Amino acid sequence: MGNFEESLDPEDWTLSRNLAHQMVDDAIGHLSQVRDRHVWQEMPDTVRNFFKSPAPMTSQPLDAVYADLRENLFPYSMGNIHPRFWGWYMGSSNFTGALGDFIAAVDGSNLGGGNTAAAMIDNQVVDWFKELMGFPEDASGTLTSGGSMANMVALNVARNALAGVDVRAEGILGMPQPLRFYASDQVHSCHQKALETMGHGAKSLTAVASDDHNRMRIPALENAIAADRANGIKPACVIATAGTTNTGAMDDLTAVGEICRREGMWFHVDGCIGAFLRLASANKHLVDGIELADSIALDPHKWLHTPFEAGCVLVRDAKRQFDTFEMHGDYLQIQERGLIAGKFLADYSFELSRGFKALKIWMSLKENGVEKFGRLIDQNIEQARYLQQLVSADQRLELVAPVDLNIVCFRYTNGIVDEDRLREINTEIMLRVQESGIAVPSDTTLDGKHCLRVAINNHRTQRQDLELFLDTVLQIGADLE
Amino acid sequence: MGNFEESLDPEDWTLSRNLAHQMVDDAIGHLSQVRDRHVWQEMPDTVRNFFKSPAPMTSQPLDAVYADLRENLFPYSMGNIHPRFWGWYMGSSNFTGALGDFIAAVDGSNLGGGNTAAAMIDNQVVDWFKELMGFPEDASGTLTSGGSMANMVALNVARNALAGVDVRAEGILGMPQPLRFYASDQVHSCHQKALETMGHGAKSLTAVASDDHNRMRIPALENAIAADRANGIKPACVIATAGTTNTGAMDDLTAVGEICRREGMWFHVDGCIGAFLRLASANKHLVDGIELADSIALDPHKWLHTPFEAGCVLVRDAKRQFDTFEMHGDYLQIQERGLIAGKFLADYSFELSRGFKALKIWMSLKENGVEKFGRLIDQNIEQARYLQQLVSADQRLELVAPVDLNIVCFRYTNGIVDEDRLREINTEIMLRVQESGIAVPSDTTLDGKHCLRVAINNHRTQRQDLELFLDTVLQIGADLE
Ligand SMILES: Cc1ncc(COP(=O)(O)O)c(C=O)c1O
Ligand SMILES: Cc1ncc(COP(=O)(O)O)c(C=O)c1O
Repeated sequence: MGNFEESLDPEDWTLSRNLAHQMVDDAIGHLSQVRDRHVWQEMPDTVRNFFKSPAPMTSQPLDAVYADLRENLFPYSMGNIHPRFWGWYMGSSNFTGALGDFIAAVDGSNLGGGNTAAAMIDNQVVDWFKELMGFPEDASGTLTSGGSMANMVALNVARNALAGVDVRAEGILGMPQPLRFYASDQVHSCHQKALETMGHGAKSLTAVASDDHNRMRIPALENAIAADRANGIKPACVIATAGTTNTGAMDDLTAVGEICRREGMWFHVDGCIGAFLRLASANKHLVDGIELADSIALDPHKWLHTPFEAGCVLVRDAKRQFDTFEMHGDYLQIQERGLIAGKFLADYSFELSRGFKALKIWMSLKENGVEKFGRLIDQNIEQARYLQQLVSADQRLELVAPVDLNIVCFRYTNGIVDEDRLREINTEIMLRVQESGIAVPSDTTLDGKHCLRVAINNHRTQRQDLELFLDTVLQIGADLE
Repeated sequence: MGNFEESLDPEDWTLSRNLAHQMVDDAIGHLSQVRDRHVWQEMPDTVRNFFKSPAPMTSQPLDAVYADLRENLFPYSMGNIHPRFWGWYMGSSNFTGALGDFIAAVDGSNLGGGNTAAAMIDNQVVDWFKELMGFPEDASGTLTSGGSMANMVALNVARNALAGVDVRAEGILGMPQPLRFYASDQVHSCHQKALETMGHGAKSLTAVASDDHNRMRIPALENAIAADRANGIKPACVIATAGTTNTGAMDDLTAVGEICRREGMWFHVDGCIGAFLRLASANKHLVDGIELADSIALDPHKWLHTPFEAGCVLVRDAKRQFDTFEMHGDYLQIQERGLIAGKFLADYSFELSRGFKALKIWMSLKENGVEKFGRLIDQNIEQARYLQQLVSADQRLELVAPVDLNIVCFRYTNGIVDEDRLREINTEIMLRVQESGIAVPSDTTLDGKHCLRVAINNHRTQRQDLELFLDTVLQIGADLE
């Protein structure tokens, strides 16, 4: 008896081995030649239709599955692995990280908890981040799917700490006073989404006006807090942004920290863009004060170029994080011995089963060293300054925001002043640059001015890429007039 | 200028290639010989200490990083890839899925949105799940990190649909009436966690008593709804469980669906364990009625054995899901052309950046076909019945719950009746079985009876594995007396 049973393992591992070697070779070809290809291209209808077939009921050899994939996937990817991708805000992935994801899946461990090497690595990566952020050793933290969830974990801990009631049991309706959260008008939309999810509603988030460098105005923050207090609302938490999404602006972390201490409020830093500046010797000072935060959201899949997904949240007071999320069913009792001994990682977040995201970060930090990541961050900021110079030196272009970090917002004007016409032209420039396959910028609107947005969060970018891109923008701009 | 810049790409791709081939070969060795190894073993202190070093500041060749990993990671994994792992509830991963995670990371696309092949595959996998669950074509869904988040997405949509106010703006304090959610007393703890996060508090979840098969008592549900309504509380949502965590019990989906329709409530099915029974011809009938749900949570990293993480939620009324999560910053305006044309996947969940989880599911479903997954599910249920027979046939063992699915709850008694003593003995049996490396069962408590819990969610398990396990239990039991 027994071996009549079937499994998902291949009948012949030799075939799997050959195919996997082929995949590795293709992957290396794909990455080593990325500079010679388009950044992005539109899918033909044949490809779109291929991805519309119904659920596959019967089996198919894996090499046939892979042949289809090779033809239809790689040529039509987002392009963020390309040196001239600067759209929105994301990292460029890396080969070591991809190997990390492969090994993690082979290991297979569930990182919800367990007395395993995988759990040790998960803990170690969080410990490294605490160390790098200047957080105390007894702080806690957890790896998340990204910055959105990292921020949402932190806001939950903040809410529960300030609720004035056992809010886990009683809910918001049991709170003595409504809570209020504060952030600059440049804050990332994930915070609003988190507060909506948490049942506080968008109105619980006060958008504090920002200054001409897009930083939160500190007196405006103080006024808002005082006004709410006078109205019976409890000021709970300030979300300071270290690197805004629009322009890379840095809120004054020290000043915000000071206010939070004085007011008995939670000091959260959204460092998804900027926290890793702590690694970058030339620009580290920009995040002075981050080490004072009650919680920090970081995003390894941005400036550490970890393949998606990888975010992280750190919480100074470990007990508060544990008290927010600790929960054990009858089927999940901790033991002193055996597989489930030790800290239960799911007690620090929303998720029970958790993947082994830590490994790709661990491998790539070990291989490259923290210092190299610091240099790559400084390099991107240098490149943004270089692009700023090129833009400023050209009469046809207008810089729309100061370049305070690695994000350059500018537009093609060439003397045109009509805002609608400028929006039309620059939108078309953005789309045509994307369609040309030469580069991927995105766009945004700042103080009513629509503009192109170049976020240089890319370990493959070189200055020559920025030159080629600007030439393309100017060419398309001229064509459009 | 230009090429003085450094990147994360290796200087010599040939070395990377050789090392990656080595990793593939090691992975295949690891998986093909898994049956001959221990399931789990305790880490020695040398390994624990290795994982405690501070953040690596300088670089190190990747092959050295990997050598450390090979020595310290694989021997100390959770063991859920092993044929004799039946602890808690999780899948066994599979090699094709691991290759999928590798390719996904090489592709690098951000699945928050975008006009890419990766996004097509993400959509296609969700469409397949809709098709397999009998959901309409115009339903929506999203891949999540797991069942906890899938359920939390669904509960958010349910809350927003029933709130009676624009709850995204106003929050819970703006709602005309408090909402109430209902589930059996066997419901998974992630629902309570979700409702706590959402600000409703644990008290918003009514635990409805379950019957002797651990199914929700329908009259008790009806009474609870009527009582709340009479007290000015709004009954919002019933969470029916298709396959409980403790025992695999199946709530009566058709009856719950009927009540929800009558009462104007949201009908959510937590199908993390049981939804994929729809694929299994011999047991499909167990989830009759699931196709009537307003939302379903599924968990591919359980019975599809997708490497962590992969969950999914489906929502019948796509607009409700979109209306709950849609949000666009200035920097994220949809276009008709270019890279960001089309549906924005982040509009269906909490997350903005999203990984390419779909690929591992896609590859493995294409390779094996849906029917094979159905057979593997039937096979696990057969194996549970076989274990039940073995347990029932042995006087020294007591079956603690009926085996309604793939979970067997039993204990070693051998005539002992004292509950404390039984707990002590069976806890020790569990730990010793784990420490022996022969198998990994977990434990739970049902109606005050502590017991071993064997959840057979494993494509590698054979009947002979269950025999070996029972022999081990009996041997240890005898040793302990
Ligand atoms: C400042 C900031 N916070 C949070 C996020 C959300 O991060 P994620 O996309 O990883 O969820 C972003 C994303 O760009 C961001 O720029
Ligand atoms: C019925 C049920 N629902 C939800 C979950 C949570 O799923 P996950 O661990 O993927 O978050 C589980 C996990 O075992 C479960 O059994």
